[in-house]
Amino acid sequence: MSRVAYVNGNYLDFKKALIHVEDRGYQFADGVYEVFNVYDSKLVDYDLHLKRLFRSLGELKIKSPISKNTYIYHIKNIIKKNIIINGLIYLQITRGVAPRDHKFPKKQISAIVITGRHLSEDDYENKFKNGIKVTTYDDIRWGRCDIKTVSLLPNVLAKQDAYIKGASEAWLVNKEGYITEGCASNAWILRSDNTLITHPSNNSILTGITRTSFIKGLKKHSIKFKEIKFNIKDIRNAKEAFATSATQHVTPVIKVNKIKIGNGKPGKFASIFRDAYMEALQLK
Amino acid sequence: MSRVAYVNGNYLDFKKALIHVEDRGYQFADGVYEVFNVYDSKLVDYDLHLKRLFRSLGELKIKSPISKNTYIYHIKNIIKKNIIINGLIYLQITRGVAPRDHKFPKKQISAIVITGRHLSEDDYENKFKNGIKVTTYDDIRWGRCDIKTVSLLPNVLAKQDAYIKGASEAWLVNKEGYITEGCASNAWILRSDNTLITHPSNNSILTGITRTSFIKGLKKHSIKFKEIKFNIKDIRNAKEAFATSATQHVTPVIKVNKIKIGNGKPGKFASIFRDAYMEALQLK
Repeated sequence: MSRVAYVNGNYLDFKKALIHVEDRGYQFADGVYEVFNVYDSKLVDYDLHLKRLFRSLGELKIKSPISKNTYIYHIKNIIKKNIIINGLIYLQITRGVAPRDHKFPKKQISAIVITGRHLSEDDYENKFKNGIKVTTYDDIRWGRCDIKTVSLLPNVLAKQDAYIKGASEAWLVNKEGYITEGCASNAWILRSDNTLITHPSNNSILTGITRTSFIKGLKKHSIKFKEIKFNIKDIRNAKEAFATSATQHVTPVIKVNKIKIGNGKPGKFASIFRDAYMEALQLK
Repeated sequence: MSRVAYVNGNYLDFKKALIHVEDRGYQFADGVYEVFNVYDSKLVDYDLHLKRLFRSLGELKIKSPISKNTYIYHIKNIIKKNIIINGLIYLQITRGVAPRDHKFPKKQISAIVITGRHLSEDDYENKFKNGIKVTTYDDIRWGRCDIKTVSLLPNVLAKQDAYIKGASEAWLVNKEGYITEGCASNAWILRSDNTLITHPSNNSILTGITRTSFIKGLKKHSIKFKEIKFNIKDIRNAKEAFATSATQHVTPVIKVNKIKIGNGKPGKFASIFRDAYMEALQLK
């Protein structure tokens, strides 16, 4: 069966999944999205993703085109129709099609797209086993990074810079020198006092669903954890480092620019943290 | 004849002007645009617009899908096919369609869309005669406002806020309290010493084509002009104020929030400035 997408009420051949050139997502980045992880046929943390989706829509005053339950219905259909065991669901809502004008259209008919993609579990396992390299990049994003919008151009530029330098993620550094987060993941370090730290949840970061579930797991295991800012100097002194995201779960970071973390290999806390996360998801 | 759009090599019925859901413009705001003014059947300042388009593409390393002359060819076709005497040409280039991944696709096939729209000259004349009201809004945009990208969500939010408050434009105020520019126009005030001022051209503003041509006109007429930042206090002391853009030319601003500019009506410099601009365009 060929790949299937859901677009504005219809299930379409992926190649024919089209939207109009005056969709405000295309002309104004006037839309939000979520990426759901499908792990071993289970739709991970969908309640938290949908909660965040509704928050994003609310912040931008975009009407949800369908009800919460209808999202789950269509997402599950996309999983079935594309036979996804391990993979991703991408869901995007925009303020819909209207004659180009910055201000909101009087009649808003939000647009919705849901697509699915297979992921190789090997790829994830390799990253976990070998760790990943990250670079740093100036955090030049807008002031509302807490909303999961498709306004991702700065993230694109940072990620491309990382890729050119042989890394797989870029950590964004704000004007004060603190790491806010990665382009598509949250950033963590384990301090020498065995306290795991990450940037506090505010307008400067997107509060990841994996981040939230991971914290739940950490608390359950009484692992020392603090929401506190860190900079390059703190990275230099860190015992271990991690990136979390729906696609990567908890992945060890072994190098930041030219700074080797620990002995340059995933540390002993990597498995402990991954287990804590998996338990929080009840996937382990 | 029905409305016609140019999309990736084809002239299409506007209703059928579609792009794929994985166009990077839709998923990442990974694209740039230009709005050309058609005034009395003339394509205004197209050389400057194309020059800026190529600069925007260059800054983002997006390949131009066609040559400079081919842009002009297709734009003129869109003007003809849509019989535009006074109106706008909207041109958007994105990094094209690719499986969703932040970093640039290995094989970039840029996408191009050109559409046209009629504008009423009366609407412009009314705005010039009556002046417009503006509000202010926090400038929460990213650090590269000098690139004309479709990453316009903060501008959308500011413009909607202005609209709700009965104004037609929002002036963006940065953290230092200075007005950078409007959502879709450059911002100017005439100081009490008869010097016209606007924010310097740097990464914080988009250097408008109308702004550039207007400055050329001002110089020709030896009108006192400076690129210098201004804040709310300066607005309070201003004799007159203006907004410039491809669609508005030089439009007098009569109110900023609750601050009445001059006597709350367009001042005596409005016609002088408009004439200077029109002469620079050789449209007068």
